[in-house]
Amino acid sequence: MKCKRCAEKAIVQLRSHNTAFCKPCFVFFFQRGIERAITRETMFTHEERVLVAVSGGKDSLALWDALADLGYDTEGLYLGLGIGGYSHASERKARAFAERRGLRLRIVALDEAEDGLAIPSVAAATRRPPCSACGTFKRHHFDRAALAGGFPVLATGHNLDDEAARLLGNVMHWQLPYLAKQRPVLAPTHPRFVRKVRPLYRTSEFESATYAFLRGIDYVVEECPNSHGATQLVYKDLLNRLEHTMPGSKLAFVGDFLSRGLPLFAAAPEVADLGECERCGMPSAGAICGYCRLVAEVGRRRAQAVAHS
Amino acid sequence: MKCKRCAEKAIVQLRSHNTAFCKPCFVFFFQRGIERAITRETMFTHEERVLVAVSGGKDSLALWDALADLGYDTEGLYLGLGIGGYSHASERKARAFAERRGLRLRIVALDEAEDGLAIPSVAAATRRPPCSACGTFKRHHFDRAALAGGFPVLATGHNLDDEAARLLGNVMHWQLPYLAKQRPVLAPTHPRFVRKVRPLYRTSEFESATYAFLRGIDYVVEECPNSHGATQLVYKDLLNRLEHTMPGSKLAFVGDFLSRGLPLFAAAPEVADLGECERCGMPSAGAICGYCRLVAEVGRRRAQAVAHS
Repeated sequence: MKCKRCAEKAIVQLRSHNTAFCKPCFVFFFQRGIERAITRETMFTHEERVLVAVSGGKDSLALWDALADLGYDTEGLYLGLGIGGYSHASERKARAFAERRGLRLRIVALDEAEDGLAIPSVAAATRRPPCSACGTFKRHHFDRAALAGGFPVLATGHNLDDEAARLLGNVMHWQLPYLAKQRPVLAPTHPRFVRKVRPLYRTSEFESATYAFLRGIDYVVEECPNSHGATQLVYKDLLNRLEHTMPGSKLAFVGDFLSRGLPLFAAAPEVADLGECERCGMPSAGAICGYCRLVAEVGRRRAQAVAHS
Repeated sequence: MKCKRCAEKAIVQLRSHNTAFCKPCFVFFFQRGIERAITRETMFTHEERVLVAVSGGKDSLALWDALADLGYDTEGLYLGLGIGGYSHASERKARAFAERRGLRLRIVALDEAEDGLAIPSVAAATRRPPCSACGTFKRHHFDRAALAGGFPVLATGHNLDDEAARLLGNVMHWQLPYLAKQRPVLAPTHPRFVRKVRPLYRTSEFESATYAFLRGIDYVVEECPNSHGATQLVYKDLLNRLEHTMPGSKLAFVGDFLSRGLPLFAAAPEVADLGECERCGMPSAGAICGYCRLVAEVGRRRAQAVAHS
């Protein structure tokens, strides 16, 4: 098979795009795709400082690598979730990548932050699924770090597979408020929030893995140990089966949603204005934000456990 | 396992409803579900004559059986599509069922109707997928038969699995006009159309197969030979996998769509008023309806074939 751009021998076939590329042309294709997503959705400019949330996995490191190559002004943010060996391994990969590329990486370790709570202890104390607590904690610390560093925009490595699976989950339950907000750029709804962008929203997991491999990016291969059995994986599996039978399905599903479905959902009434959390000062719909409610719950549960022991 | 209604030994477990029934209670549950669907969606009353489209398969015969038991005033309509042995077998089953139950069955054989075109010859002449021609032909002849017989309403045996697969297909491509019309009751948009209803829209394929079996209904088991590889089957397979992992998924998907999603889609601008087809007089958005365009295309293609032979 030949590269569709330069007619050299192709090394990557992309069935969803009905194309194939040699190594340099794939790297070009991958980076151009990101550049186009950024421009089309007005995510950020070359004049803005971009905070890139990196987990040490293929998607976020491939994204950071491409953004740096494309000349954007980036810094990385690594959040130490405290999930045992997985967190240690992923932090090492993120640090090594930043060092090799000469990029600045900010590190926030949850168990060393003001509340001193890592994900496993929150999950254990509240008996919630770890992923639920993790989402709340990540959002809170992403926003705080972006605010503290004066970044107008935070980029995450969510890829097409993530977006398609989330969309399918929201559609299966017709979660209208979530459907109204599922877009690759979220404008801040409060001065203490920053713009959130997903430059890989049209880039498949396969493409980012291929890019990371071809660029020699050393990333953490294992998935988060908490993700086993997650509903998201069921949807990903279904979409992979569909993609296998009908290549291009995921891209059409997400793309057609953004052009045709989203406008309908987004036209529904807005949520109420946000105030500030009385405890942490971050934006909140109620008096206390979701993060601080979770932190308080951990404190209560622990006190109860001590009282009963 | 015990029956959840009467505590006798259960013979059917319904994971999607988290329940189980003995034979009489399952029959009660099945029929009550249909009765509730009819009432809740205001499909028809006991005073209206209902034409039930029967294919000879489990769904439509189970539906007809239940409607007759529930005291509705029904007649059957069997459309002879001319699909070889499949059509012969299904017609025999439909006739035998009607005779056994003492119900009146109307039969329209496509190759004996005015245009004299069975599905295989339409597909062959136009080189279209048979299912596409079949849909157009069925809709046309269903409407004509209902109109000719003076029925205000036509009931079809589309079940929950059909509805969920169609919904998933429409959502995967964000087909807004189809999404706006996917509901269990379609009011006529023209005086020559009748109301179309789907009383089994909350009844799974498994439930209708079980009902047919328990009631000793002899139905055609084989699927239409043209259905192999149909996209619909891909979606059904995916939904079955999802249902297996998360029982109740199909019902929630369709139910939540009707209560939350549909109102948004249905609020979009309506299609233009329908006029009448110049050839057959049935409702049509253009001068010639889809059915007559297809019939004309068959004629043209055949004439070309003769001219070139």
